[in-house]
Amino acid sequence: VIHVVPLEGLPEIEAGMDLAELVTTCYELEDDDIVVLAQKVVSKAEGRVVRLADVEPSALARTLAGDDGDPRQLEVILSQAKRIIRARQSFVIAETRQGFICASAGVDASNTPSPGTLVLLPEDADASAARIRERLRVLTGKRVGVVISDSFGRPWRQGTIDVAIGVAGIPALLDLRGTADAGGRELQSTQIAVADELASAAELVMGKARHVPAAVIRGLHLKGEGTAADIPIPEDRDLFR
Amino acid sequence: VIHVVPLEGLPEIEAGMDLAELVTTCYELEDDDIVVLAQKVVSKAEGRVVRLADVEPSALARTLAGDDGDPRQLEVILSQAKRIIRARQSFVIAETRQGFICASAGVDASNTPSPGTLVLLPEDADASAARIRERLRVLTGKRVGVVISDSFGRPWRQGTIDVAIGVAGIPALLDLRGTADAGGRELQSTQIAVADELASAAELVMGKARHVPAAVIRGLHLKGEGTAADIPIPEDRDLFR
Repeated sequence: VIHVVPLEGLPEIEAGMDLAELVTTCYELEDDDIVVLAQKVVSKAEGRVVRLADVEPSALARTLAGDDGDPRQLEVILSQAKRIIRARQSFVIAETRQGFICASAGVDASNTPSPGTLVLLPEDADASAARIRERLRVLTGKRVGVVISDSFGRPWRQGTIDVAIGVAGIPALLDLRGTADAGGRELQSTQIAVADELASAAELVMGKARHVPAAVIRGLHLKGEGTAADIPIPEDRDLFR
Repeated sequence: VIHVVPLEGLPEIEAGMDLAELVTTCYELEDDDIVVLAQKVVSKAEGRVVRLADVEPSALARTLAGDDGDPRQLEVILSQAKRIIRARQSFVIAETRQGFICASAGVDASNTPSPGTLVLLPEDADASAARIRERLRVLTGKRVGVVISDSFGRPWRQGTIDVAIGVAGIPALLDLRGTADAGGRELQSTQIAVADELASAAELVMGKARHVPAAVIRGLHLKGEGTAADIPIPEDRDLFR
């Protein structure tokens, strides 16, 4: 049995706040707990906020914005992207510097500190996760996993699901190669994206509109360690890039 | 808090077995529980099994199989597909008759009843979910949700995650349109694919290699009803088809 516990009572997060310490005030952690934090609060704690008024849009940003978009917002998206995957009207799907492919290169205009601001992804969400994990260890003595989650759309299926963009202390992918199925044959699908499934499980109790930006998953005992950088499909094996 | 409970002790599933009754012998259901069943056991109970020896491959199947694939297996995949999305060597990504896009049109050669057999998706997994839900209501008097899950790969990210291919008694998508964020602005991402997130949460306790083909999720009280047919992006809005 696993338990997915929403962490309620966290304050509005501002730059410089100690997220790990705030988590410990909400919940008593145990070894092997997995702390899932919404990207938005990690980004805010890291000060990853841009004011539209400070942005000078490029010609490319103006083109991508079309008639409906804000060229300044497109300029911020371009600054966070290393590749444009698709662009239609002012909607852009881009590869982030970390290698994740998502809408707007992860730049978000909802749940921002104030109107006219945008929240960027953490510079390196794996490093953020590792830092938070280490701080939790110092504060509690417990060895936990940390997942930083974000809501991504995906091809072919409507709606967003939460996936992992930062991982520490647990594997991102579980490798079943060499594991036999119930009939004794080797399994075809050899890897499970467990960090993404943890992010989705946590979203069930978090919820954008409920203002619960963190959850703890208890009862899984995952062996090994990985990072979210393990997740992107290498370009030469990708059929959709 | 939500609880994700693996249903252990189910027998090997064969054609004609009453899955709903088997679930009730493992676990005492309550109203609003969500029963997640792996596609594989639903398909087996419905007799959706093909013997390779009975299959005559077409010319197209032989081409797609290339040097490494089994033309008979490709023939079965073609029989389940309404569109080929990508094909490379003997690997095919196809749209199923139900509208889901996945590897091999959902045809699976692992965990089959015996070597030389393939398991197909249920003919209509939404209908299967509705049937199982109704049977659970008759057996227990409880109104539960049912999700039929399958492990899908996805573009750009390695590993499979479990998603919903059949839904009954709960919404497949949660619509947050009109919901305000913490700053009072309307949310950008307006839909959450909650049925997919439930499938992923259940996979954390199910696991292909652990032979646990079902789980119950307790503690979510979802309003509304939908089907997995709500999930596919309509073709005219799809940037990746």
